[in-house]
Amino acid sequence: MAGPLRRRLPPLPLLLLAAAGLRAAERSAGSSSAMEELATEKEAEESHRQDSVSLLTFILLLTLTILTIWLFKHRRVRFLHETGLAMIYGLIVGVILRYGTPSTSGHDKPFSCSQEDRPFTTLLVNVSGKFFEYTLKGEISPGKIHNVEQNDMLRKVTFDPEVFFNILLPPIIFHAGYSLKKRHFFRNLGSILAYAFLGTAVSCFIIGNLMYGVVKLMKLVGQLSDKFYYTDCLLFGAIISATDPVTVLAIFNELHADVDLYALLFGESVLNDAVAIVLSSSIVAYQPTGENTHAFDAAAFFKSVGVFLGIFSGSFMMGAVTGVVTALVTKFTKLHCFPLLETALFFLMSWSTFLLAEACGFTGVVAVLFCGITQAHYTYNNLSVESRSRTKQLFEVLHFLAENFIFSYMGLALFTFQKHIFSPVFIIGAFVAIFLGRAAHIYPLSFLLNLGRRHKISWSFQHMMMFSGLRGAMAFALAIRDTATYSHQMMFSTTLLIVFFTVWIVGGGTTPMLSWLNIRVGVDPDQDPPPTNDSFQVLQGDGQDSARRNRTKQESAWLFRLWYSFDHNYLKPILTHSGPPLTTTLPSWCGLIARCLTSPQVYDNQEQLREEDSDFILNDGDLTVTYGDTTITANGSSGPHTATTNLDSRRTKSSSEEALERDLGAADHEVTSRGTRLVFPLEYNA
Amino acid sequence: MAGPLRRRLPPLPLLLLAAAGLRAAERSAGSSSAMEELATEKEAEESHRQDSVSLLTFILLLTLTILTIWLFKHRRVRFLHETGLAMIYGLIVGVILRYGTPSTSGHDKPFSCSQEDRPFTTLLVNVSGKFFEYTLKGEISPGKIHNVEQNDMLRKVTFDPEVFFNILLPPIIFHAGYSLKKRHFFRNLGSILAYAFLGTAVSCFIIGNLMYGVVKLMKLVGQLSDKFYYTDCLLFGAIISATDPVTVLAIFNELHADVDLYALLFGESVLNDAVAIVLSSSIVAYQPTGENTHAFDAAAFFKSVGVFLGIFSGSFMMGAVTGVVTALVTKFTKLHCFPLLETALFFLMSWSTFLLAEACGFTGVVAVLFCGITQAHYTYNNLSVESRSRTKQLFEVLHFLAENFIFSYMGLALFTFQKHIFSPVFIIGAFVAIFLGRAAHIYPLSFLLNLGRRHKISWSFQHMMMFSGLRGAMAFALAIRDTATYSHQMMFSTTLLIVFFTVWIVGGGTTPMLSWLNIRVGVDPDQDPPPTNDSFQVLQGDGQDSARRNRTKQESAWLFRLWYSFDHNYLKPILTHSGPPLTTTLPSWCGLIARCLTSPQVYDNQEQLREEDSDFILNDGDLTVTYGDTTITANGSSGPHTATTNLDSRRTKSSSEEALERDLGAADHEVTSRGTRLVFPLEYNA
Repeated sequence: MAGPLRRRLPPLPLLLLAAAGLRAAERSAGSSSAMEELATEKEAEESHRQDSVSLLTFILLLTLTILTIWLFKHRRVRFLHETGLAMIYGLIVGVILRYGTPSTSGHDKPFSCSQEDRPFTTLLVNVSGKFFEYTLKGEISPGKIHNVEQNDMLRKVTFDPEVFFNILLPPIIFHAGYSLKKRHFFRNLGSILAYAFLGTAVSCFIIGNLMYGVVKLMKLVGQLSDKFYYTDCLLFGAIISATDPVTVLAIFNELHADVDLYALLFGESVLNDAVAIVLSSSIVAYQPTGENTHAFDAAAFFKSVGVFLGIFSGSFMMGAVTGVVTALVTKFTKLHCFPLLETALFFLMSWSTFLLAEACGFTGVVAVLFCGITQAHYTYNNLSVESRSRTKQLFEVLHFLAENFIFSYMGLALFTFQKHIFSPVFIIGAFVAIFLGRAAHIYPLSFLLNLGRRHKISWSFQHMMMFSGLRGAMAFALAIRDTATYSHQMMFSTTLLIVFFTVWIVGGGTTPMLSWLNIRVGVDPDQDPPPTNDSFQVLQGDGQDSARRNRTKQESAWLFRLWYSFDHNYLKPILTHSGPPLTTTLPSWCGLIARCLTSPQVYDNQEQLREEDSDFILNDGDLTVTYGDTTITANGSSGPHTATTNLDSRRTKSSSEEALERDLGAADHEVTSRGTRLVFPLEYNA
Repeated sequence: MAGPLRRRLPPLPLLLLAAAGLRAAERSAGSSSAMEELATEKEAEESHRQDSVSLLTFILLLTLTILTIWLFKHRRVRFLHETGLAMIYGLIVGVILRYGTPSTSGHDKPFSCSQEDRPFTTLLVNVSGKFFEYTLKGEISPGKIHNVEQNDMLRKVTFDPEVFFNILLPPIIFHAGYSLKKRHFFRNLGSILAYAFLGTAVSCFIIGNLMYGVVKLMKLVGQLSDKFYYTDCLLFGAIISATDPVTVLAIFNELHADVDLYALLFGESVLNDAVAIVLSSSIVAYQPTGENTHAFDAAAFFKSVGVFLGIFSGSFMMGAVTGVVTALVTKFTKLHCFPLLETALFFLMSWSTFLLAEACGFTGVVAVLFCGITQAHYTYNNLSVESRSRTKQLFEVLHFLAENFIFSYMGLALFTFQKHIFSPVFIIGAFVAIFLGRAAHIYPLSFLLNLGRRHKISWSFQHMMMFSGLRGAMAFALAIRDTATYSHQMMFSTTLLIVFFTVWIVGGGTTPMLSWLNIRVGVDPDQDPPPTNDSFQVLQGDGQDSARRNRTKQESAWLFRLWYSFDHNYLKPILTHSGPPLTTTLPSWCGLIARCLTSPQVYDNQEQLREEDSDFILNDGDLTVTYGDTTITANGSSGPHTATTNLDSRRTKSSSEEALERDLGAADHEVTSRGTRLVFPLEYNA
């Protein structure tokens, strides 16, 4: 996404890690007379030291957080997540910095001189015969000129907002995409897409309108001291619609809560981040022409919709294409003999997605998300075992550091950000609005989805999803991106409070909420969803097995089936070493291409899989059921019998069906390790 | 190291990754009238895109390099190392950028206005009633004003020189330190320290003086158009004394060349980087007082020596202290249950060394080196198995990317850097000087060292070390750090050429050189050095074994033995889970502290080690010999017999002696895996 949101901000050269953005306001360079030189050098040194100290502050914060997390994990404390902890430490340091450091610097007197035209980006200044080069930092509203001389230390710990977008978010989002390779995600894909796209749009619109009402009210009671347009309200809606239930998901993971609920929540939060970014930039792009610049304008509206679709699909394409290119490169070279090279290539290609998207005017963060998903789905299969763990671990560490950094920065920003505008009416309004917005998005959508879903989203799930609408890193990054105007400053302060509240209160209440809603925990990730009352059936024996399978097939959405067979028959064989040989799936006139594109391993894999099959079915015999609402409840006891019949009946199926179920059922390579756990599912039911 | 080298450069806020330093010369911010806003926004967008494109260029370069490296490794091409390759690709892209893009931008007219006093670091400019903030970038010499309007693309791909120091070098240097845990390194520690400290100082002084002669000559023949002081020559000596035989070491590694030679070369290059940095900043700090500012001044000289010692020891302390703190934290918490937290902590602590050193005015890069060594020596033992591989792999990837980035940037800089001054006389002089400087450092020092060493550094080793004086990343980073004056620009251009020449020609000639010098390859890393003719002895049987051990003890330098026993008896038990319990090594009145500091694992380890001992001796029986010049040549054939006698005689030794030899002989945890390879050493001799 190019420019729109950056309107009033200096465009940032693509910074690559956090501190890069430390505002180097005090940059100074030497002049040549000896005394002056010494003075400037001292100043430069001092500034460099302050930079180091401020970064050290953050590292200290993160180190403290890590140690406390360890203590909490060690003692199984669950009421506070690491991100909440990072915020608390950030707050404490923020208070210290705010009230513990001298409040004015004053050694840099701003200098004024008049220019006629628009501002130049480069300025040459003649100082007693020597020329100095200055670069434009940004506009300062006349009322804020005194702010230029503000607390040195507070300036040092204030990052360029673009740092969050260009440095800290990409690893977080990429990791989310890269770790999304869960069959439960793909099984619930339709619902997730609905929640992410429709839901976010609905939420944005409702929050925007409610907040417009609040703003009107504030104007009535005289609480508003500057302009606050309808588009600003909508932008707030978009910003605050990006949910980030990191706390909830961590607890789900730890307690092994219901996997479908997990998939719904995780999938929604990952995709709605992308939607929220693109939505907010489309709203910024909504600029009605003519005099009345803040009234509704159909042309501008449709332009905004076009911008949304364009940016979203463009970013999606960018991400998918680089993912596919990486898959092809890793497939057709023997790079897997050199894990270091492979990992480096993987990292560079994933990063290039971001740059490519930004260079083309799309949104890097969104592209990175889809790149992550593509990499996980295809490239991952081509990597050597070592590179698999290397890439996972690399992005895990980056994700962990970036996320905790953002959250501790949030804590810090509450005290060190110097342009806060806290309006009680706006804040209360916002809390009500996000509550209503979330409700208006979860319940009606779930109702509609349940019309189509066989395995209904139960009321307790809906309540839990309603409850899990935490706001986090993405909302913060979107809000801090533009804090130039009164309305944006108020939005930023409110967003900060909402993040604090939801992470601490809602995050802390997850465990009680789970037990209150009777959502089962301790579920094996590969076990079936629990029987729902309306369609409970116990199936045993021979004939029922095939009947069940037929129903399963009908139940899968046709769109998903279409995609699945295309993916399985063409994309996977082209891009990875798995899947059926292309020679069997492509029409015969493509014989030559098919033979070139199919890797020799595929034939071996086929043999191997056929042999492994029996093992699989014995252990994983009931996997086919998971697409419907019918389940075998007493799997453990009737195991051996069912397994044998499965084995017999499945042997008669056509190979493609077999492959479909095998592939759907067992996520590629984790079959045996998972399968063995399935034999004793009762043990895992707490 | 604070300021000195940065004198004429803008002090850089601690950037954290490469692109951070992309010169954002075109930064522009919006003004508020609609048309202007649109125009500025477009410009901002354009600038952001260009930034992305230029970073993409580098990523493309690295990707290409990786793929070609794979191809080379695949086909066992050894005449060109990856770094050389990266430079070639950089050169090609540099040529394209230089001659393929439009050469002037011209839409940013520099604006001049006069100031009375010294330059302000922040400038407020009034443009038709709006205020804009500018920050000082640096001084521009009047003759270079036109350069401000130079090629946009070339500016974009030009990084802030401090990026190299603050972002790219630290991971390279840390990785060097972290991977230095080789017993061959510690065995040759004395020689390595001599080469690194004395050698670098000698080389710097000789090159500096020779170059001063060259400069005098140039002045005579009228080839010098600006000032070139003696201190500049010495600085050049320091810059170019940083060797980086990455190519040679890679080939050594691949061919399993002699391990002692490897240790000498690697150790020297790692430590002399540190010496060269500190040396160069001490030379910059050499500022004689009074009028005659470039004559010799004893006070200033001793001040420089003091600066050198202060910075070096300070940086060393910083690195060691953070390493020790990390070791303690990882020892006394059960962080090893959570590899992610452990890895993150390790990364943060290692990074904080850099910041801490910079904040205290020491040299971050040097601190990072010693931190790496400390981490490898102590912390590494406390990490969980997963974290060990994670941290290694993480820094391996960072190192790989940073190194190849620097080398491809070097290739690029030859064409895109706009202030090159190529002086043929200076260049030829420099080549001769580095040759002589290296010779004057290797041969005399080796002669002196051989007086003390029992296992002599042979002539072929000396020639190989002489030959392996490649220059690389460190020399480049030191040279590009300050290119403000004529002399520094000439030094930079010359350094670049020296790096190219040595990496391509010398690097490519390594394999022929090895065979020409009859240096044996295919050596098992744990095998002994080859017998030297002057002291060849074959030892077998019972009595000789203990005699041999006695000699070994005498032969170990007393300083090393002192350090070793201190490290083994006190530091290791305090900082790690290994070593003897403190309760046995500390005096009895420290009983309580000793019990607190000793981890329970130590007692278990002791038992375990005692049991593993026999296994060890059977396979690694001749390890004790490696400290002397006496060796068993027919290890494979006489193995079983010697092993048994070893076992018998060693059982009678006192436990501390036993531990010493055990620990020295087998680098901590790699005993069994290495030991087994020792049984068939002949197989590895190509």
